Amino acid sequence: MSRLILAFDLGGTNVRCGILDEKFEILARAKTEVGKRPAPEAAVGKMKQIADEALGQLGKKLGDIACVGIGSPGPLNSQTGVIFETPNLGWKDVPLAKLLGDALGRPTFLENDAVSACWGEYVKGVGQGVQTMFIFTLGTGVGGGLIIGGKVWKGPDDIAGHLGHMIVEPNGPTQVFDNPGSVEALCSATACIKAAQNAAVTYPESLLARIPADEITGACVNECADKGDQPARDIFERIGRHLGIACASLANAFNPELGVVGGGLAFAGDKIMAPLRKELRRRALPPAGKRLRMEFAQLGDNAGIIGAAGLALHRLDGKL
Amino acid sequence: MSRLILAFDLGGTNVRCGILDEKFEILARAKTEVGKRPAPEAAVGKMKQIADEALGQLGKKLGDIACVGIGSPGPLNSQTGVIFETPNLGWKDVPLAKLLGDALGRPTFLENDAVSACWGEYVKGVGQGVQTMFIFTLGTGVGGGLIIGGKVWKGPDDIAGHLGHMIVEPNGPTQVFDNPGSVEALCSATACIKAAQNAAVTYPESLLARIPADEITGACVNECADKGDQPARDIFERIGRHLGIACASLANAFNPELGVVGGGLAFAGDKIMAPLRKELRRRALPPAGKRLRMEFAQLGDNAGIIGAAGLALHRLDGKL
Repeated sequence: MSRLILAFDLGGTNVRCGILDEKFEILARAKTEVGKRPAPEAAVGKMKQIADEALGQLGKKLGDIACVGIGSPGPLNSQTGVIFETPNLGWKDVPLAKLLGDALGRPTFLENDAVSACWGEYVKGVGQGVQTMFIFTLGTGVGGGLIIGGKVWKGPDDIAGHLGHMIVEPNGPTQVFDNPGSVEALCSATACIKAAQNAAVTYPESLLARIPADEITGACVNECADKGDQPARDIFERIGRHLGIACASLANAFNPELGVVGGGLAFAGDKIMAPLRKELRRRALPPAGKRLRMEFAQLGDNAGIIGAAGLALHRLDGKL
Repeated sequence: MSRLILAFDLGGTNVRCGILDEKFEILARAKTEVGKRPAPEAAVGKMKQIADEALGQLGKKLGDIACVGIGSPGPLNSQTGVIFETPNLGWKDVPLAKLLGDALGRPTFLENDAVSACWGEYVKGVGQGVQTMFIFTLGTGVGGGLIIGGKVWKGPDDIAGHLGHMIVEPNGPTQVFDNPGSVEALCSATACIKAAQNAAVTYPESLLARIPADEITGACVNECADKGDQPARDIFERIGRHLGIACASLANAFNPELGVVGGGLAFAGDKIMAPLRKELRRRALPPAGKRLRMEFAQLGDNAGIIGAAGLALHRLDGKL
């Protein structure tokens, strides 16, 4: 009989869970809000609550679960299960795998959310059949993940795959720490909103200028761009170009087969992807550029849950 | 008894060879000039000639050689043994492994020169004991090589490791193809000379301005810098900073243990390494930056021969 895996996708606002079989089909799901800057114990309580809800849908108990996976924003250490810092949740040095494992009584493993999404797309999404791929997840920050030769590559300190901290414009703006012009500082939803606020001032005729500055979201910018607003279109064009530069560096450095763009901003679609591909074709060595297929993530919100489940099962089985 | 390996390091001006044992000690060596833009057959003739010379020193014959390795500038395909293009030699689509293999009658394998140097440092130089490392070789161009988890990583198209084509300043100058602001365009000896020629015009009081423009070499710039000439020092400072940006991207993406700087310009020493390390520390995620040790290559000219020998033996034994 197939083992069951319980997996969580922990976000800044919501936490979602799913129960999956070994083929990573999601058999049941539940979600709830975590609230603003919750105490870790409170968040764990809510996670247990939605786990019980999902188990109830299947008529199962915690004892039927082989292992538990959590995909969480980082930085974190997936070997020790400790979250170093999540600005969105306001956490610092939280041993989440241990806390949740104690609450659920099952072997529990923690993984970076973007790495989970990368693995989800690899086993069940757009990455099926490839051996070497990477992901950029464009959200509040820019997450990343790296699969080399069919294995998640985390490096000796469990920190590899932070592709959002690659540098594409060294004199560019700074986001979280003093690393100006990183992919994160230029291509995150946060950067998109900031660029739109600036464009609204510079181009008072832009549709962006009709939105109160503090109400601008990535979705607003996308709507304006779809209505033909040039300043809004330019924002996505620049994001695509900057991502394309990072993808070209990755192509020339490690010759991957697939690059995936996921996360909230992916709704901008071809407005990001067309300039990305153009910049990649221009800058990659021809065999590397020809090989690297760039695609959007296919699994949406499910990628994180599927990937967290897959990586937890790998850890349980000693394959990671 | 230990097998013997014959290895070549093919440069734009000279070709050198060595005969090595399985511990990669160089037992004999010989070298000659290849001449400007030689016909491939002529170069192969000279390679056979120095091989005979080195064999003579040991009282050995070609039949005593287990296999032959060649480290060569690329781009090339190490699986097929074909050099696609070497601007310095003026070659295009030359099946060098086959040509030399036919001339010597021994199994012959071709590898990129920087990848060879990386492997040489890994088995016998500054990289001994590490599992994940990279190299930048600062010469006419900037070569690169990547070892991940103890294996040379070449990717599905044998093109991975071209770190000189990572982008660090997207609006910067262009070197070989339309990839402005690549490491190669900013940190090669060619870029160093070009920068010195420009500085000589901009700063007529600089020592650089006393040298005829077409006689400026990397060594000249180094001498001027050592005499305290600020424009010359600034050139190496910028090269170090740009390399540091690329190293920070590599640290955040791969979490390597070691980065090596080799090639001609390495003689600039701390004038490059100090700004490199500073930029790396600033931009790398703390665990990744703490882990990544940056060092100069230790083996000098021997790295290419040792690495070509090691990789040829790996291929002979089916390990690559």
